[in-house]
Amino acid sequence: MVSAITIDNIEHFAIGSSFLGTGGGGDPYLGSLLCREAIAKYGPVPVISVDELKDEDNVFIAAAMGAPTVMIEKLFSIEDQHRAVATLERFLGREASAIISAEIGGCNSMMPVAYSAMRGLPIVDGDGMGRAFPALQMTSFNIEGVACAPLTIADEHGNSVLYQTTTGLKAEELARPVAAAMGASVCMSCYPMTGVEARRATIPKTLSGAIAIGEAISNSSDPRPPLTRLVSALRGHEYYKDAAVVFEGKITALERDTSNGWVLGSCLISGMSGPETAELKFQNENLLVTVDGRLRCVVPDLVTIVDVETAHAIPTERLAYGQRVAVVVCSAPPLLTTARALDVVGPKCFGLEEQYIPVTELIKDLI
Amino acid sequence: MVSAITIDNIEHFAIGSSFLGTGGGGDPYLGSLLCREAIAKYGPVPVISVDELKDEDNVFIAAAMGAPTVMIEKLFSIEDQHRAVATLERFLGREASAIISAEIGGCNSMMPVAYSAMRGLPIVDGDGMGRAFPALQMTSFNIEGVACAPLTIADEHGNSVLYQTTTGLKAEELARPVAAAMGASVCMSCYPMTGVEARRATIPKTLSGAIAIGEAISNSSDPRPPLTRLVSALRGHEYYKDAAVVFEGKITALERDTSNGWVLGSCLISGMSGPETAELKFQNENLLVTVDGRLRCVVPDLVTIVDVETAHAIPTERLAYGQRVAVVVCSAPPLLTTARALDVVGPKCFGLEEQYIPVTELIKDLI
Repeated sequence: MVSAITIDNIEHFAIGSSFLGTGGGGDPYLGSLLCREAIAKYGPVPVISVDELKDEDNVFIAAAMGAPTVMIEKLFSIEDQHRAVATLERFLGREASAIISAEIGGCNSMMPVAYSAMRGLPIVDGDGMGRAFPALQMTSFNIEGVACAPLTIADEHGNSVLYQTTTGLKAEELARPVAAAMGASVCMSCYPMTGVEARRATIPKTLSGAIAIGEAISNSSDPRPPLTRLVSALRGHEYYKDAAVVFEGKITALERDTSNGWVLGSCLISGMSGPETAELKFQNENLLVTVDGRLRCVVPDLVTIVDVETAHAIPTERLAYGQRVAVVVCSAPPLLTTARALDVVGPKCFGLEEQYIPVTELIKDLI
Repeated sequence: MVSAITIDNIEHFAIGSSFLGTGGGGDPYLGSLLCREAIAKYGPVPVISVDELKDEDNVFIAAAMGAPTVMIEKLFSIEDQHRAVATLERFLGREASAIISAEIGGCNSMMPVAYSAMRGLPIVDGDGMGRAFPALQMTSFNIEGVACAPLTIADEHGNSVLYQTTTGLKAEELARPVAAAMGASVCMSCYPMTGVEARRATIPKTLSGAIAIGEAISNSSDPRPPLTRLVSALRGHEYYKDAAVVFEGKITALERDTSNGWVLGSCLISGMSGPETAELKFQNENLLVTVDGRLRCVVPDLVTIVDVETAHAIPTERLAYGQRVAVVVCSAPPLLTTARALDVVGPKCFGLEEQYIPVTELIKDLI
């Protein structure tokens, strides 16, 4: 486990969490710029393990909500993030003692680091998804019975909104239209937890996991190609170990529709020298991949499109015709694949007809 | 001034505030049922004048937000109203010591009475409109510099939302879509005030004014017809004194569109025995009336359609083809017709091209 997020490892963290973002969570490049600035100004951010949390700690989430296609044009600021958290602190009458990521994917893994730096608070090595998901209720916090509300969102004009709802799904339903009215990209805080709750409901060690993945991709002293290093790092990881490259090719068709605050669509990849094709569906995040009609991975297991040369993940909003890519799949943290979890993050929660089949079975021939 | 709202005067209050509602604010009949029940259960509600408020008092609003056409089917409860106020109290860390009406029109004059009864708090003799208006920012509180936010809304499923916004217009913009998502009819609290602020920004004596108007309409010991008694009562009032019946006839055309949480439209009234016609435009409330193309009254002055026999106001959502009606107009409280006020509640705020001309000039020939 790393002891702090510093100027030296923030780049690895961005690269690794971009992979775990499975196409969503927003491009971490912009978030990493925010982190660099915050760390330069306020110093490195101490990382604490879930086990180090005291019972009475107050663990608050710093996060972004909106459409990633918008987030790359409408940038976040730490001040807006603070307004979201401060509104929640004021309502609850207690102050944050640690910050945690809601999702260890893309921008949503970066903002909590920048915000922790500004507040002088430690960040927890863990998150609520072990990857990225498009909706508020799709977290281990929710699966483990932590209430999503009160939830707050804040825009860049000084406005903030607090939701007290009976369910996470209702918070999602009432917050999404306001996020859209605020410009489809807002700062958020939700699932305020005590230390006891956070220890129970967090997917641990995903922050250090993301850094390890980023390090492997970037490790130029290893002579193997980046894609091989990535798969090797995944196979050595506690959660992501059932991993494989299921397809390589170029993007030949792309449908992307930004509506209701989400980006929905599909992507077709054709083999470089044969008739094979792979097809992906996404709702902010990649949901499934089929190769020549054969299912190779379905949510909550992870599907990420990476650049075939650099093995850097390509977020949904940066996909483009003609890109040379590889599709990498890997297993989700076990907490996401229980029967109870599949009711919250399984294929049917995304309107998919496919049943969940563990990726380890779907890629047996490739391991 | 009345000293309390009781079982005996609640009916007069409902009838009078229905007139001041100028077609909007929701049908007070349903609200008066809620009041009767609350007064029977908790006792009469003490009425205090604005001058009796102490500097450090906390004056909270109880109100409804939504489309009146929906409100007659989706009823309010005191419990939902309490959730809206309690969320605000919790956020501000102070408790209400008095309740006030945001608008002395229709349902929004009733709910505060029922809620005051439940809380055992006095209600202030005054409100923020001296009539009814369709939008949150259209209040004397706003005109006098009281912030609309923090604002809360609550639905009947246990959900509440709190807004901290930089302007009342922004609160309106962000709350309206959530109110629509909650079913176009929600309970609300906003413009939390100290006693100092409430004394400065309230339109005083409108609660007792509404009761006096209702008494006059209902006073069967006065041999004059109800319509005559109504106009006479208005002419005797401090604010509403420039009053007249500008048209009598039957409704021959009606356009009404419930969208974006409002009911928008127009109403054509034809003379009983001649070619004359009157036309009204409304956005929840009646905005203007022309008779044979001649402007007779425009917002913020009051235009109300009443039953020609009973002189009871007919709210927008109860207008129907063939009804025999009279159009009564009267002057607005002076606080609403200053240059500063017209920027908030003048014709252009409703998208009207007409300039504001005081009703006293428009009906000179009728007084």
